[in-house]
Amino acid sequence: MKKLKDSIVGFIGLGLMGGALAMGLRKQGPMKIFGYDINPLVIEKALSENVINEGVSDSQGLQKMLVQCDLVFICLSPMEALAFMALYMEDFKPGVVVTDITGVKGVIVNNLGNLLRKDIDFIPGHPMAGSEKEGYGGADDSIFKNRNYILTLLPSNQPENIEFIREIVMALGFNHIVETTCDIHDEKIAFTSQLCHVIAAALVDCEDDLSITDFEGGSFGDLTRIAMINAPMWTELFMCNRKNLLGQIEKFEASLDSMKAMINAEEKTELINKLTSVREKRTAMGEIRQAKTLKNVSF
Amino acid sequence: MKKLKDSIVGFIGLGLMGGALAMGLRKQGPMKIFGYDINPLVIEKALSENVINEGVSDSQGLQKMLVQCDLVFICLSPMEALAFMALYMEDFKPGVVVTDITGVKGVIVNNLGNLLRKDIDFIPGHPMAGSEKEGYGGADDSIFKNRNYILTLLPSNQPENIEFIREIVMALGFNHIVETTCDIHDEKIAFTSQLCHVIAAALVDCEDDLSITDFEGGSFGDLTRIAMINAPMWTELFMCNRKNLLGQIEKFEASLDSMKAMINAEEKTELINKLTSVREKRTAMGEIRQAKTLKNVSF
Repeated sequence: MKKLKDSIVGFIGLGLMGGALAMGLRKQGPMKIFGYDINPLVIEKALSENVINEGVSDSQGLQKMLVQCDLVFICLSPMEALAFMALYMEDFKPGVVVTDITGVKGVIVNNLGNLLRKDIDFIPGHPMAGSEKEGYGGADDSIFKNRNYILTLLPSNQPENIEFIREIVMALGFNHIVETTCDIHDEKIAFTSQLCHVIAAALVDCEDDLSITDFEGGSFGDLTRIAMINAPMWTELFMCNRKNLLGQIEKFEASLDSMKAMINAEEKTELINKLTSVREKRTAMGEIRQAKTLKNVSF
Repeated sequence: MKKLKDSIVGFIGLGLMGGALAMGLRKQGPMKIFGYDINPLVIEKALSENVINEGVSDSQGLQKMLVQCDLVFICLSPMEALAFMALYMEDFKPGVVVTDITGVKGVIVNNLGNLLRKDIDFIPGHPMAGSEKEGYGGADDSIFKNRNYILTLLPSNQPENIEFIREIVMALGFNHIVETTCDIHDEKIAFTSQLCHVIAAALVDCEDDLSITDFEGGSFGDLTRIAMINAPMWTELFMCNRKNLLGQIEKFEASLDSMKAMINAEEKTELINKLTSVREKRTAMGEIRQAKTLKNVSF
């Protein structure tokens, strides 16, 4: 198995997530961290903070960097990640472990197809963490604490490389690693993440009173914090997972309609039963999450 | 103006909210705190914790208690609060200040009508705080920190009594008091509170996979924490504010439908514009909330 202390780790993209991952990796003592970002100011800042040892913003520099890396984190949006892998496939070091962080997986894996070199072990990943902040300036590796990390493994992945990634992930603060397929990931994530963001955005969109927060007791704030969204990135995520997302929106709408009908018809007993079963289900979901982790988390 | 140190304060109902308010009031040094709860075990616990000085569970005891109270907090559900005031109207001390905590106000004030004695100053209130816990065992006055408190004042309210309540509320930890009408309160609250609870419940209701939390990155947890709801109480709140709530559900559904249509038609530019404007609106809402408070709060 590769050892981090003997590895050069490359970060492609030092945004909110790439920056945070690099900050977390730094604490694990890799041989070197290289960074690539199209914004030279970001590279400058990451160098000055000792988050990276070397950094580049141009494609020539990137090619020279890439061939040295034993582990590469591609921290770009799905279409950018795909374009990056297609463009620089020949520049990776033989035997490299490559992983990514994109919020949809099918679009990457299905489109990569035969492009992927056989001497590259690509282990697709999805750190289930985020923040309403944007870019390297908002990066903070404390967002990983007690979160899920999903790996959508490929049949070609080497067990020792999976273990290498798993150890790094746990040391970053994540407390639960889920191994699944791209298809299951994209279907589930359309519900837990994308649908939730659509709901939050619709909730803010439909209210015109900017002083509505006068009447706020926590619920509206909690439900809409994720409406402070990186608009182009989330539009891309919605588009890359469009069919799953549309299916999940319709699933939610059916439940909402059924509750609306109960309220309209003043079906008190049915409503009490429904809300009771919802409470039990949500409590069970929290308990199942908690049982799967070694660390104590609230959900 | 009444002074708390010379006042006997009565709590009608020592549940999650009544219990927490009594705990907070205790720190402000009133002359005495009396408590009424139908559950004798709750009274016993509140006495043992010195949250109340005296407590009763029967209506005779309640009558004897009520006539001594200078300030009464009615901490019951809307229909219970209305029934309580109708039943015990003759037992209040002349000149008493009475307030309540119900999440809908029109149903109380409109139905009380001419029942209200002229020597009782009833100042309807709504502490905008809560918890997924239930009952006195879950009561904790830290939930009030940096929250809104709404007063739906009546024309008959005495300025010095309003000020008396305001001082108590600020000392409880609330950092913003909103004075408004019952009608505005009920319309706004249908959006910020009841609609949010319906959405949270529908989101849990529509998902059958109890292990969905494997794919959770914070959003689903944040959006559904309030789905752990006191079913009978929230059913009552929904019923008491049915028309406003139905209107708010439809308003939200229209926005959700419009976003669904954009996703379905792959209207990327429109989606980016929509999500950008949503982000700006939500940020402005948070800034407006923050500007209205003296204490530093995150929203």
